[in-house]
Amino acid sequence: MRWEDLDREACSVARTLSVVGDRWTLLVLRECFLGTRRFEEFETRLGIARHVLADRLKKLTEADVLSKSVYQERPRREEYRLTERGRDLYPVMMTLAQWGDKYMAGDAGPPLLRIHKSCGHVTEGVLTCAHCGEPVSAHEVSVKAGPGARAATLPARSS
Amino acid sequence: MRWEDLDREACSVARTLSVVGDRWTLLVLRECFLGTRRFEEFETRLGIARHVLADRLKKLTEADVLSKSVYQERPRREEYRLTERGRDLYPVMMTLAQWGDKYMAGDAGPPLLRIHKSCGHVTEGVLTCAHCGEPVSAHEVSVKAGPGARAATLPARSS
Repeated sequence: MRWEDLDREACSVARTLSVVGDRWTLLVLRECFLGTRRFEEFETRLGIARHVLADRLKKLTEADVLSKSVYQERPRREEYRLTERGRDLYPVMMTLAQWGDKYMAGDAGPPLLRIHKSCGHVTEGVLTCAHCGEPVSAHEVSVKAGPGARAATLPARSS
Repeated sequence: MRWEDLDREACSVARTLSVVGDRWTLLVLRECFLGTRRFEEFETRLGIARHVLADRLKKLTEADVLSKSVYQERPRREEYRLTERGRDLYPVMMTLAQWGDKYMAGDAGPPLLRIHKSCGHVTEGVLTCAHCGEPVSAHEVSVKAGPGARAATLPARSS
């Protein structure tokens, strides 16, 4: 399988990875969620090569995850902001960060704490069932073929 | 910044990506969550080159995300299972899949439906605040320095 075929595979994980399955892309997105908008800010904060950054911003803009807008005309300066589609990647970012907080932070503890503004507390995002509201973990979820399934999509064994 | 330095950066997203920030790695993990355990099963289902698969399984085992165990002695055959650390990546997998279901499935609809076993319904995982139980989205979360923060960790602007 070639990477270019990933978004055609009948798997939503693979399709999402065809857009964001690259470490620099995910770090660019991390910066977007932290409020970074301008090319030079991304460059400085990430220590990323300019051509790599330009490539990732272009791809994210083409995928409608970021939108580019002009904030200054002379000289022309542009900034990048998350679209709704982009903001909807927040759960991916938060769950990646939380796993790192739990398993990779070591004795120093987590670098960032997240505060849920509406309740004012340091928070952790818990994945809960949209139907019953209880937490969901891998053991509590089974899968079945959806409308877009193809044979290769189906699990190796039922869980 | 070199990728080898990512796990030393004071960012939990970057640290997690140093373990799982590779598309093949994430697709191997997808298979693990679908019940795939054996080398040949991974190979067939993913259409992945053997040396790439062997490399990713080795790294995931070294990172204690998968454990390798012998299921047959003669000839010796091994299988890979998620450890607790690995199972804790489920929220990352589920949120990646849900974004793909929402934005990449097209007219065909989602390839897989997830069922919450304890309530029996087709479910979607909603990220909720561990403190107040309300849903959390990017707009509702701000960040502050945690115990493991370094200057470069802090956001570009407060959100």
